[in-house]
Amino acid sequence: MLTSCDAGFLSQLSGLLPPGTLAAPEPRYLEEPRGRLAGQAGAVALPRNVDEVSVILRACHAAHVPVVPYGGGTGLVGGQVATTGAVPLVLSLERMQAIRDIYPSENVLIAEAGAVLADVQNAAASAARLFPLSLASEGSARIGGLLACNAGGVNVLRYGNARDLVLGLEVVLADGRIWNGLKRLRKDNTGYDLRHLMIGSEGTLGVITAASLRLSPRPAKQGAALMVVTGPDAALELLALAQDRIGGGISAFELIAGMGLSFLAETMPQVRQPFAQAPDWMVLIDLGLPEALDPTDALEGLFSEAHEKGLVSDGVIAASLAQRKDFWNLRESIPEANRHIGAISSHDISLPLSEISTFISRAGPELARINTYRINCFGHLGDGNLHYNIFPVAGVDRRAHEQERACIKTCVHDLVHEMGGSVSAEHGIGRLKARDLVTYGDPVKLAAMRAIKHALDPHGIMNPGAVLVDGEM
Amino acid sequence: MLTSCDAGFLSQLSGLLPPGTLAAPEPRYLEEPRGRLAGQAGAVALPRNVDEVSVILRACHAAHVPVVPYGGGTGLVGGQVATTGAVPLVLSLERMQAIRDIYPSENVLIAEAGAVLADVQNAAASAARLFPLSLASEGSARIGGLLACNAGGVNVLRYGNARDLVLGLEVVLADGRIWNGLKRLRKDNTGYDLRHLMIGSEGTLGVITAASLRLSPRPAKQGAALMVVTGPDAALELLALAQDRIGGGISAFELIAGMGLSFLAETMPQVRQPFAQAPDWMVLIDLGLPEALDPTDALEGLFSEAHEKGLVSDGVIAASLAQRKDFWNLRESIPEANRHIGAISSHDISLPLSEISTFISRAGPELARINTYRINCFGHLGDGNLHYNIFPVAGVDRRAHEQERACIKTCVHDLVHEMGGSVSAEHGIGRLKARDLVTYGDPVKLAAMRAIKHALDPHGIMNPGAVLVDGEM
Repeated sequence: MLTSCDAGFLSQLSGLLPPGTLAAPEPRYLEEPRGRLAGQAGAVALPRNVDEVSVILRACHAAHVPVVPYGGGTGLVGGQVATTGAVPLVLSLERMQAIRDIYPSENVLIAEAGAVLADVQNAAASAARLFPLSLASEGSARIGGLLACNAGGVNVLRYGNARDLVLGLEVVLADGRIWNGLKRLRKDNTGYDLRHLMIGSEGTLGVITAASLRLSPRPAKQGAALMVVTGPDAALELLALAQDRIGGGISAFELIAGMGLSFLAETMPQVRQPFAQAPDWMVLIDLGLPEALDPTDALEGLFSEAHEKGLVSDGVIAASLAQRKDFWNLRESIPEANRHIGAISSHDISLPLSEISTFISRAGPELARINTYRINCFGHLGDGNLHYNIFPVAGVDRRAHEQERACIKTCVHDLVHEMGGSVSAEHGIGRLKARDLVTYGDPVKLAAMRAIKHALDPHGIMNPGAVLVDGEM
Repeated sequence: MLTSCDAGFLSQLSGLLPPGTLAAPEPRYLEEPRGRLAGQAGAVALPRNVDEVSVILRACHAAHVPVVPYGGGTGLVGGQVATTGAVPLVLSLERMQAIRDIYPSENVLIAEAGAVLADVQNAAASAARLFPLSLASEGSARIGGLLACNAGGVNVLRYGNARDLVLGLEVVLADGRIWNGLKRLRKDNTGYDLRHLMIGSEGTLGVITAASLRLSPRPAKQGAALMVVTGPDAALELLALAQDRIGGGISAFELIAGMGLSFLAETMPQVRQPFAQAPDWMVLIDLGLPEALDPTDALEGLFSEAHEKGLVSDGVIAASLAQRKDFWNLRESIPEANRHIGAISSHDISLPLSEISTFISRAGPELARINTYRINCFGHLGDGNLHYNIFPVAGVDRRAHEQERACIKTCVHDLVHEMGGSVSAEHGIGRLKARDLVTYGDPVKLAAMRAIKHALDPHGIMNPGAVLVDGEM
């Protein structure tokens, strides 16, 4: 049984910490970006270093007080807001935002968990290196939260998920013990890989306080193109062709649906549309190449061969880095246009690459049996990751479809599951998908997860209700 | 307490399995490549499918009989041979060697644990794809064992360690339950990453029975060069320069010491030496490039700039694929030459890249205080992974130094540890390094490992004595 973070506990805890470490929770700690959940907190702890985190967790462990680790608050599955049960202590890492060290010759940077992603990217850039994790919320998302939910983003195709960018971690376990695992090694086979266990565990096993991150050389030349494809299958063939022709130089390969362009035209007319007539499907291809290769040549050659093969019908290659930025601005504006329209239901799914086209052709008709919707399907095609979002028809407010949401979700997730996909590709489970994990997860894996959770957090204080549903430990 | 695999248990187990599943252990199951350990086994189980593995583990779990999973028997740390304690059942995966499926358009291949690495490489090649895991024992090492110890090899720089090539796993847990985790997804954030926990756990948490493996496009063009460098520091600068110039096209970057060439000349004179006078240090650079780039141009350009910067003094670029193969044959012959000379002590270590040169300059003089040795230091420089091996001077047998072995090992490992390195870069812990893990491992990580071990294998039947030292659970 957990105990609420009450005045008695806070008074005892504050005696163990420097003044100003505990504060009343501002509203931002209790909200999440889509406004679907409202959190509760007895207080916010704002530690300055790993030892203070250790003191806090040791006290919570001893008193059975729940702890919700808090990064930038940008998570989309409610992992950062506890809504029910004993009132938790929110543990924000925002004061631990140092770049502790940077080793350009090793391509390594050590950042504290509270460092904002954009600051880490900039620190890498100022050492002429690249930290390739990149996603829409990079101006506010923090390293600890990004690792806790193994963030994805646009460069996974080339550089991997967040977990693939981590060489080592510093973690405070549930009982306050500190694991000093900040190695800077590319090969280290000394025991179980706790690093990968902590990454993606969404704060339910411990608190990541710092990470040793893998940097990359900055590509000498960048380029991008938008190409109109005949459909998602053609887009995948185009990707394979591009990989054969350009090797590892493809940094991103994003699928954009005509519906997204139409939403943009409707809600953000200031964003310039690339084609006079909005195509049904197009892709954004982004390249980062060594000095000896020219991005324009590479993209022209690719377009030409793809056109011969009937994969693409039109295209535009960025003539400058400014135009490349425009292409990305278009891509990054689609989620904003989606918010203006107002989704009934959003789905962060992944599929085996060869199933994507079948999924798209099956999901539309199945949803049409529920009601008539507009579907905006876009995402990181090279990773098999679609953001498959359902909207009302023009002029209708999403609230009119509120009672259909559960049914829509089940329809999409059932199909994804049947086709060997994942109902959470890059956002995690949090609280919003904890029941889905029970429904769609492998039961043996779930049992193993519960055993591990119990082994590392026997009192269940770490982010209760996230990932593993309450009471089923 | 564990119970030996005796006649009574075997009689009961054989009743649960098809005829011919259990056999008397041939000597090969009780040996390891360096002959340092002699194993014991009550029998060998040779299951044909995952359900038989499940039956076997369920029975062993119920009877508390230890199980030693067995792949190709090529491990170098004794993970495959139990020497003490209750007599185990050896569980060999050699009959489960099917390539279950291959999805060329997804770059995915599903292999059973008993598939030999070379067979997986060939299956990928026959679908015009690359499975990039590559190491000296690829003709006999099996996928299950390679994943159990997170094998490294020569292509880690470009493609990652074995764990980075795995999208999903099928695993039988200690109590016989089957986790069906053979996903083919590049993004899947649904709960704790059991895949990475199993990979590298060396058969102590369960038995990997199949894996969904990530393939890559085959580079259109290959090339290689040997370049004489002024030292390990220059080699690292050369690597950085190569990465800036050639991007991700560098597949391998191997450091070779003059001592290795001298051992080759002494024991394998048939291997052609690349330079009239053996240099103190050289590197083998291997490239895999897209169609639009020429490897010879790339290597000539690199050599020219590196020569201007004083990093390289001589070099030879492979004029043909046959010559490239010769270069690799030279590299791969060095471990064989080492065996002919007979190492007193071998060390599979890794270091932060910027510490490599300092390590090499410090380790020699420290070892010289013990006695006079020849040192062959070679390895996967781009990964910071050195094989640092100690030999007697010419004409002396290694047995003359037998009593110095422990002292040599401590000297090397202490220094590696002090410099933030790892005492097991790519071979794992097994039984030979289990004590080192206690000495050099982070105590909090070790405690967490023991808690996880106990949670997933409460009777301790899985590969007892490997990774975690007996009696310290």
